[in-house]
Amino acid sequence: MSAETAFADGLPSAILSEPEPRHLTEPRGRYRSAARLLARPRTTEEVAQVVRAAGQNGIGIVPYAGGTGLVGGQVSGAEAILLSVERLDRVREIDATDNVMVAEAGVILADARAAAAEVDRLFPLSIAAEGSARIGGNLSTNAGGVQVLRYGNARDLCLGLEAVLPDGQILHGLSRLRKDNTGYDLRHLLIGSEGTLGIITAASLKLFPRPRERVVALLAVASPAAALALLNRVRDQVGEALSAFEILAETSFAFLAEAMPTLPRPFDTQPAWAVLLEVGSGEGSALEARLLPALEAAMEAGELVDALIAQNEAQATDFWTLRESVPEANRQIGAIASHDISVPISRLPDFIAKARSALLREVPELRINCFGHVGDGNLHYNLFPPQGRSRSDFDTDRSRLTAIVHDLAHSLGGSVSAEHGIGRLKRGDLAQYGDPAKLSTMRAIKAALDPLGIMNPGALFSDP
Amino acid sequence: MSAETAFADGLPSAILSEPEPRHLTEPRGRYRSAARLLARPRTTEEVAQVVRAAGQNGIGIVPYAGGTGLVGGQVSGAEAILLSVERLDRVREIDATDNVMVAEAGVILADARAAAAEVDRLFPLSIAAEGSARIGGNLSTNAGGVQVLRYGNARDLCLGLEAVLPDGQILHGLSRLRKDNTGYDLRHLLIGSEGTLGIITAASLKLFPRPRERVVALLAVASPAAALALLNRVRDQVGEALSAFEILAETSFAFLAEAMPTLPRPFDTQPAWAVLLEVGSGEGSALEARLLPALEAAMEAGELVDALIAQNEAQATDFWTLRESVPEANRQIGAIASHDISVPISRLPDFIAKARSALLREVPELRINCFGHVGDGNLHYNLFPPQGRSRSDFDTDRSRLTAIVHDLAHSLGGSVSAEHGIGRLKRGDLAQYGDPAKLSTMRAIKAALDPLGIMNPGALFSDP
Repeated sequence: MSAETAFADGLPSAILSEPEPRHLTEPRGRYRSAARLLARPRTTEEVAQVVRAAGQNGIGIVPYAGGTGLVGGQVSGAEAILLSVERLDRVREIDATDNVMVAEAGVILADARAAAAEVDRLFPLSIAAEGSARIGGNLSTNAGGVQVLRYGNARDLCLGLEAVLPDGQILHGLSRLRKDNTGYDLRHLLIGSEGTLGIITAASLKLFPRPRERVVALLAVASPAAALALLNRVRDQVGEALSAFEILAETSFAFLAEAMPTLPRPFDTQPAWAVLLEVGSGEGSALEARLLPALEAAMEAGELVDALIAQNEAQATDFWTLRESVPEANRQIGAIASHDISVPISRLPDFIAKARSALLREVPELRINCFGHVGDGNLHYNLFPPQGRSRSDFDTDRSRLTAIVHDLAHSLGGSVSAEHGIGRLKRGDLAQYGDPAKLSTMRAIKAALDPLGIMNPGALFSDP
Repeated sequence: MSAETAFADGLPSAILSEPEPRHLTEPRGRYRSAARLLARPRTTEEVAQVVRAAGQNGIGIVPYAGGTGLVGGQVSGAEAILLSVERLDRVREIDATDNVMVAEAGVILADARAAAAEVDRLFPLSIAAEGSARIGGNLSTNAGGVQVLRYGNARDLCLGLEAVLPDGQILHGLSRLRKDNTGYDLRHLLIGSEGTLGIITAASLKLFPRPRERVVALLAVASPAAALALLNRVRDQVGEALSAFEILAETSFAFLAEAMPTLPRPFDTQPAWAVLLEVGSGEGSALEARLLPALEAAMEAGELVDALIAQNEAQATDFWTLRESVPEANRQIGAIASHDISVPISRLPDFIAKARSALLREVPELRINCFGHVGDGNLHYNLFPPQGRSRSDFDTDRSRLTAIVHDLAHSLGGSVSAEHGIGRLKRGDLAQYGDPAKLSTMRAIKAALDPLGIMNPGALFSDP
């Protein structure tokens, strides 16, 4: 009897099947899973059964949530099975007094947001893929998104976890507590570990008051440095009410016009740089009145070139649609290489200037779309072929160009994966740029908690 | 040659001495360190030298920061040495654009707060002991305090760590990044691990805008449930501008009047319960005007009995002095037992009612001072002898009374150590109330990272 047969024999047949095509592909098309078996457990106990059976038979498990990850963390080799959490899809509890929601790992992020809204609360995690991404994946990759500036990353939104550990034990940690100093914080160890230390099955998540008033503005700025000066002006004025501060480049607007010509074009002339800003707070907080002095001062200082303040919700939505359509426009244009870097905020102008000049030396007329969460120091820094050229002309240049971007980010104290994680795509980067003491500690923890190496084999670490 | 002599021979003599008396005692006088040797390294490299020498000679190290911990985490047996971080006392860098301060572990918390204020920023961690507590201790115990509601616990204020690991490696992780998803989050594993996994030598800490306006109010409320209803009203109105929401009981006021009679008495009659509330935000945020409708609605609903809004900074300080003097008043009265529990916020009224009736069945006329961070679900729940009796009359009752309090908190989904940690005092509680999968995972991590058991032996775990 093969290990796979023995594995399957011990489990309820109702939870085993062949993977569907959707389980085998990933958004960027770089990888394809080779798994022949898919487990879709219906309960936490069934997840534990699968994990125990995998351990007994030496079979790897690749956890699968929404499948929207961009670094191949959800991709399985032939030697492993896929474990989808899609049937663990209940919001178990929601409590507007405790400001807590207990959601299973398979709850789709947009559904979690909607459940919170039903009790007049905000669950702030918001990413482009929220219509299909699931909570378990958001947590295991520590998802970021467009509200991090105010509310933090996924880890900051989680009060506690239920998880199945590599030995099949269930960690019962669905705490609703805001304070609990009783031993090591395993929640934060599991969050961001990309399924290599266990399978998150449910989470208690923080809810927030829903801002009653918001102001959304699209601001043409003189330069990235001017954007940062504006960021500090606004923050001094409205503090944590600032929830988003996103940057768009001239190229972003050009790509939107080229790929998605029906979208509105709010500026008469495309600015070199623009910031999309959102502030929100309670009733009577007079946000626009408080924001205006900061904008006026920025205008006088020459930082701000033009300011469009959304006059109604429709216009606010239009502004956000522009920002959120940039990734789709990029896909249509076709990138040579995409990056998800972060640097200390003060180093952003330096990064942008140096990366540009180094890359243009390599490929004159290379098109660079530099956009993203500038308030968090996180840029999506994507490279496109010169006008009229094909991306395939640059297949042999990709790794050299990426090395330029990553080396520069690293040299400025930055990260080569700000919000997407390591998965299988960036294992080499982790090994290259990671602190040696961090890497050896990670390996020691992995070996201690998953001595059989069954949890997401091939993710994070190149060797087992 | 004894192990201790061999250990000392390999180290610079300038960093070794006998401990001073202040290093051997702790605030509650329950423990006394038996260490005969004190190391006071001057650099991170010297910390690493001490750790390596300890490993080579099988000598335990108890890290010592401000010595203000309340659970004996800083207490050494005769078989270990004390390692004080007091000479690592530099603020290495402070950057108002990145909103980051890099502080060494020995920086006193109040000094860190002052350094932030000098660049017009707020470092929000604020605890009663901030005049002597040090950053390294704050992080290794994940300190809480009176601003958690808005800014989180110590772990939420830390972007990165430099630390010496049990094998003597230096973890270089002084990240200034707001987003970095590259592998396991060792920062959060070290924070709150109470020196059992390594010694924090420096940290990069988040800074915030300084609120330009604040409103401080002392509010007599009808009951703990009324306090919670008020909390939600205020939060709906002002959102994250709410930075503190502390509760005081009638007993708190009575103890203040008895032990510290020169303090102001703002209420004509002592209320059964009172809330100290603080909101803060930027200029022109009209906080008082926004707060008033919530207070009026609470008054109409019968939740709010009396409202005193500080009319100036002096009065605001007076209100805070009352709150911050409660621990000192408690010390003068003399507690039978002190507790630091948390429960989900919605369970607070239930906890307060049930604990009171169970305890009074045991000791009629027991005096209970229930106060603290009600907005975080965290109460300092302290028990005092009936009027006219001595605490020593109740020495044999202490553990039974504590078991009542801890059992109840646990049964309501709560924690027996919300902000003080486990140290040596609560090892039994951790073993008793901790989730078995969590405990076995903690032990596996400890064994993997500190196989020789040299890091703070005796803290967290009862056996080596």
